[in-house]
Amino acid sequence: MDFYLDAPLPNLPKTSQKKIIIIGAGFAGLKLARKLNGTAYQVILLDKNNYHQFQPLFYQVATSGLEPSAISFPLRKIFHQSKNVHFRMAEAKKIDQNINRLYTDVGYLDYDYLVLALGAETNYFGSKNIEAFSTPMKSVSEALFIRNKIISNYETAINIAEEEKRKPIMNVVIVGGGPTGVELAGAMAELRNNVLPKDYPELSFKNMRVVLIEAGGSLLSSMSTAAKNKSLEYLQNLGVDVLLNTQVEDYDGLTVKLKGGESIQTKTLLWAAGIKPASIKGIGNEQKLANGRLLVNTFNVLKGSKDVFALGDLCLMEIDDPRGYPQVAQVALQQADNLAGNLKGVLKSQEWKPFRYRDLGSMATIGRKLAVVDLPFIQFQGIMAWLTWLFIHLMAILGVKNKLFIFFDWAWNYLSFDPSLRLLIRPKVVKQKENKA
Amino acid sequence: MDFYLDAPLPNLPKTSQKKIIIIGAGFAGLKLARKLNGTAYQVILLDKNNYHQFQPLFYQVATSGLEPSAISFPLRKIFHQSKNVHFRMAEAKKIDQNINRLYTDVGYLDYDYLVLALGAETNYFGSKNIEAFSTPMKSVSEALFIRNKIISNYETAINIAEEEKRKPIMNVVIVGGGPTGVELAGAMAELRNNVLPKDYPELSFKNMRVVLIEAGGSLLSSMSTAAKNKSLEYLQNLGVDVLLNTQVEDYDGLTVKLKGGESIQTKTLLWAAGIKPASIKGIGNEQKLANGRLLVNTFNVLKGSKDVFALGDLCLMEIDDPRGYPQVAQVALQQADNLAGNLKGVLKSQEWKPFRYRDLGSMATIGRKLAVVDLPFIQFQGIMAWLTWLFIHLMAILGVKNKLFIFFDWAWNYLSFDPSLRLLIRPKVVKQKENKA
Repeated sequence: MDFYLDAPLPNLPKTSQKKIIIIGAGFAGLKLARKLNGTAYQVILLDKNNYHQFQPLFYQVATSGLEPSAISFPLRKIFHQSKNVHFRMAEAKKIDQNINRLYTDVGYLDYDYLVLALGAETNYFGSKNIEAFSTPMKSVSEALFIRNKIISNYETAINIAEEEKRKPIMNVVIVGGGPTGVELAGAMAELRNNVLPKDYPELSFKNMRVVLIEAGGSLLSSMSTAAKNKSLEYLQNLGVDVLLNTQVEDYDGLTVKLKGGESIQTKTLLWAAGIKPASIKGIGNEQKLANGRLLVNTFNVLKGSKDVFALGDLCLMEIDDPRGYPQVAQVALQQADNLAGNLKGVLKSQEWKPFRYRDLGSMATIGRKLAVVDLPFIQFQGIMAWLTWLFIHLMAILGVKNKLFIFFDWAWNYLSFDPSLRLLIRPKVVKQKENKA
Repeated sequence: MDFYLDAPLPNLPKTSQKKIIIIGAGFAGLKLARKLNGTAYQVILLDKNNYHQFQPLFYQVATSGLEPSAISFPLRKIFHQSKNVHFRMAEAKKIDQNINRLYTDVGYLDYDYLVLALGAETNYFGSKNIEAFSTPMKSVSEALFIRNKIISNYETAINIAEEEKRKPIMNVVIVGGGPTGVELAGAMAELRNNVLPKDYPELSFKNMRVVLIEAGGSLLSSMSTAAKNKSLEYLQNLGVDVLLNTQVEDYDGLTVKLKGGESIQTKTLLWAAGIKPASIKGIGNEQKLANGRLLVNTFNVLKGSKDVFALGDLCLMEIDDPRGYPQVAQVALQQADNLAGNLKGVLKSQEWKPFRYRDLGSMATIGRKLAVVDLPFIQFQGIMAWLTWLFIHLMAILGVKNKLFIFFDWAWNYLSFDPSLRLLIRPKVVKQKENKA
């Protein structure tokens, strides 16, 4: 059973203000908290981590291009000046919708409004083996784990005499042809083509395959035909083996079995094939789909509730399209924006506005000077798309210092062709004892 | 028993060149390898990590001022262009001096010359309790561990209702009044004075004590009287409780017992009280002191050997002063320099030059604009000393990119009074299975 503390969370300022609890400081939760900063609500923002993670750049952490700190932003710092927003590092455990109470691992909180913005987790579609042996990339820690794994694989390979035994250690197989898989495959191929051969002159990088496996018939399935075709072409030019219409059946840590009988040898299977909503106890079965997504109306109100909301990847908004809106950052940000407006409106007794999604387009970068961009009015690929991608992502990063550091890092990597973060810094394994008194 | 592989280390270029193995890529080992780059020796550099660590700035990693990557430098990158220096991430296990063979965890190596530059480890002076419960800072991983520990302490403290129970979690006790302890205490006091209160407005930082404990009668015992006095004054002005002539008797993870009966409550005891030489099997008892330091002559040749050398903190050179030279970076660097010259001389049949230490002075920084500097011809303290300290350390850092990033980080922290690295990024705990096939 999950542990939760059955005592109120201490050290919160007493106030007569209505209390909004936001669980999760991803794109949706953080946006909402920032929008509610300075209002007449007491806002309590909870997250498992003490920082916001900028998911679109995880793949650059995994491939030694950026430091974790460049794309992680301390939440307390964001709310230094705030009088009404309070952050706590805590894990939400259970909701009691009858008495408006949220239980966490550090105490419970009573709410007037509760906003669920827990996001999504890696979906292994029920395969216990794949979950046990493959590596996901849904957090900056996991991205760092991938970086360490790749580097230690090569430090291991160089000490193995037989070439055949080195191959599975050198190969990298990525599953999932969405933006994450495509960007990871491109960056991994560039590491192989330009960086690793300089670090390991004794090894032959012809022996390193970068394989991208996608179950559907194209990459970037939600993008334009031009983007689909160009991304495939770019990856193939970088030397990525793209396997379309291909499903992974099983993986034992060494052999990837594909449906149809083929197999690939690798010690490194990166799993970016799907997501599932995060879960929390206390949600009724009638409030969610079988796959766990929480049903909300066009005001992001949880089905059958009045004061619980769900935002972003976690929710499915009941609209004409039964698939709802796509699980992307733009939807999360815009829903948070709309909910913030509505919650502020409550204080002025304004009428609630329904959510309307404005598709601003999507993009993916494949490598140095290569990207694909779909905007509502135009689609383009190549170096202009790459520059657009760089600019948009730089602007989306929180904080002046992080922007500057990332810009500097990108410029350096671009000019030197040599990302310098190939450090296998494993934080000390805590063999330290702790006094529990 | 330690594992070592009883097979030759594979994938090394075959050559008729004489083979020099260097164990350890700290100040001494790395300097020597760089000096031997491009010579007619085959040089194999071994280290447990794949990067060189810049020890003098560990305390800034521990106190959120710098990223680990800023003070760690990938060893393979340093030798990208090299034809004769080869790096391997490996642990040296045992020397067989009779057959000139070194055993490691990834295979054995036969050598013409073996250079031991393994450095020193934390010395707990036999106290099992202190070793189990306190936190050392002899690697960048350990420095990162301290940072994470401090941050998670505060995230814990804020969820505790009783003020008395919060105090031991907030207090930080540092043992050892050498440069490490002094610099750590100063930086920790500045965190308390300027940074943490903004992050945790709900907590009272009067409850946080920063205590520095030193067994001797002064801080920075090897420095000038002016430096000793000023560093004490600076620390006291920052609000550090400096306890001189005080010894720690025991620690159980909560209570630091001092000799004489007093005690201090803390969950965080940082141990910088002493070092001991790293050890490796295969060294005769007559070749070392009881404390483990390897005896070398003025050519850094290991006692009773012709082709094994020891450098830096690990060795004790037999000179008029029975204490030998101090265990500081300058001695390590200069010994490496001298040995490189002698080994190069061998190829030209030159005569061996004995080592002569040139004391270039020492320095320590205590806080923002505060440092103490002893140079051979002048001693000074305060802001000029601080600028000198900044300049010297920036110049000593390897690589243009690291220099620039550190400079930028320092300038940012100086201007903003707000180091931004308060991220509790715990790399994913590897619950992942591995296929051992």
